[in-house]
Amino acid sequence: MIWASGWRLAAAVSEAGGLGLIGSGSMKPEVFQEHVRKCKASTNQPFGVNIPLLYPHTDAHIDTILEEQVGIVFTSAGNPKKYTARLKSAGIKVVHVVSSSTFALKAQDAGCDAIVAEGFEAGGHNGREETTTMVLIPAVKKSVQIPVIAAGGIGTGAQMLAAFALGAEGVQMGSRFVASEEASSHLAFKEKVLQTKEGDTQLSLKRLTPVRLIKNEFFNLVNAAELRGASDEELQHLLGRGRSKKGMFEGDMTEGELEIGQVSALFDKILPAGEIVRDTWQAFLDAKSCIQHIGE
Amino acid sequence: MIWASGWRLAAAVSEAGGLGLIGSGSMKPEVFQEHVRKCKASTNQPFGVNIPLLYPHTDAHIDTILEEQVGIVFTSAGNPKKYTARLKSAGIKVVHVVSSSTFALKAQDAGCDAIVAEGFEAGGHNGREETTTMVLIPAVKKSVQIPVIAAGGIGTGAQMLAAFALGAEGVQMGSRFVASEEASSHLAFKEKVLQTKEGDTQLSLKRLTPVRLIKNEFFNLVNAAELRGASDEELQHLLGRGRSKKGMFEGDMTEGELEIGQVSALFDKILPAGEIVRDTWQAFLDAKSCIQHIGE
Repeated sequence: MIWASGWRLAAAVSEAGGLGLIGSGSMKPEVFQEHVRKCKASTNQPFGVNIPLLYPHTDAHIDTILEEQVGIVFTSAGNPKKYTARLKSAGIKVVHVVSSSTFALKAQDAGCDAIVAEGFEAGGHNGREETTTMVLIPAVKKSVQIPVIAAGGIGTGAQMLAAFALGAEGVQMGSRFVASEEASSHLAFKEKVLQTKEGDTQLSLKRLTPVRLIKNEFFNLVNAAELRGASDEELQHLLGRGRSKKGMFEGDMTEGELEIGQVSALFDKILPAGEIVRDTWQAFLDAKSCIQHIGE
Repeated sequence: MIWASGWRLAAAVSEAGGLGLIGSGSMKPEVFQEHVRKCKASTNQPFGVNIPLLYPHTDAHIDTILEEQVGIVFTSAGNPKKYTARLKSAGIKVVHVVSSSTFALKAQDAGCDAIVAEGFEAGGHNGREETTTMVLIPAVKKSVQIPVIAAGGIGTGAQMLAAFALGAEGVQMGSRFVASEEASSHLAFKEKVLQTKEGDTQLSLKRLTPVRLIKNEFFNLVNAAELRGASDEELQHLLGRGRSKKGMFEGDMTEGELEIGQVSALFDKILPAGEIVRDTWQAFLDAKSCIQHIGE
């Protein structure tokens, strides 16, 4: 949810009854602090923050979280051992994002309160095992005792119900909220997300860090380099810096890196985030009553 | 289900209340005829056959189906236009296997009675779009009016419930039945399937025909060739002939091609097929009552 999930989106989701998350991955320390403060000022409901642990500003972000008394932290892309104890000793709930049972167990051992298990179909950074949500959730449920939040391929009430059927205790939706009014993503990117069809995204950069991207010109360049056996250094050079900002925040649909999940194939409208939360919940209840009669 | 689903497995599944399918892909015409006859002699319940349309014996198999009055045919890997009208004019129900909404629409236009929509996590041959079951089923449901049977990542009652939550009218399970007593697969392969963990299979041979394989020595050879940019001819030569028979039927776990779905990570026992059908159904009902209270 880099370049998408600032205080406006997080507050709108929390106000509607979801747990809004501020995505700190794209934020410098002072920007992150501002977003946390504005979110606190905008809602009395609980909200959380997501911290990718391998990003440069993690230490400063953790300090902000402690100072501002943010109650819930989702960590990802790194070792949950490093910060969990410190956060938990301040009374903060810690949830770690994983892509396999092995990493889920490590998060549990590190003292995390819950995990997000994210399948292959999810947008952005992803695991090397390529396990889909349909298989990952039951596998992770067999492995850990802490609550499991399902992610990857979940953007509708029916998909939310499917995740609960698989044993999840909650769902995390990202892509659907990129195409919301409150997302800070560029309008050109939001419209691109609506146009995305089945097969229009692909897990890319598997040798570096796997990431699901829309197949635009930038993707084609990277993909061609991978296919001809380019070195890691060549790939890094091609990637350059600021590609995701260029695409998702500045709206360059050609040269930018565009991260979104497969589920974007199902969306056809940019909606207010609160409406997405309420519609999803109603569709969840409707889907539940649709399957109630089966086998009776 | 090549080398796995002969008359013994199909009859056992049908006897237990499922719809057993004879997989004809590995069978010469006279072998296929024998399997159909033995299946008819072993159960009074309906059963079907699966015909990969691009395989060499398709015409002969279609003749057998008509002569033996098989009532239900699942076609895959080819154009549904070619045989559907002929089969349907003989009163046969035709179901076509697809991996995208585009192909689902083509199957509907060809007059198919239903489709199987098979996600990226499925074993064996697969689509190029890499759409997972979690996203594929809702997408296909939006596109066609004929019934949708979900496949890919479904091997337990909870996964079956998830598929129904996504809008499917039925499920097709393959991998779970490879690890059944009645499957004609080699015991070494069945045991290998039980040992398979998350990340142990991968969609391979994407330039030729994508196929999900267990990462054994044969896979490593093919994968390395792909990574260094080998030509299609080199890959075809590496593949050679009879690799799947060698692996799944003759039990060569090193040199053979081993097709199985990601869901195999969840299995720990070879069971009688009838028990699998009954256990899955019971687990489906249990999972349904587990989610009934959510949101009430």
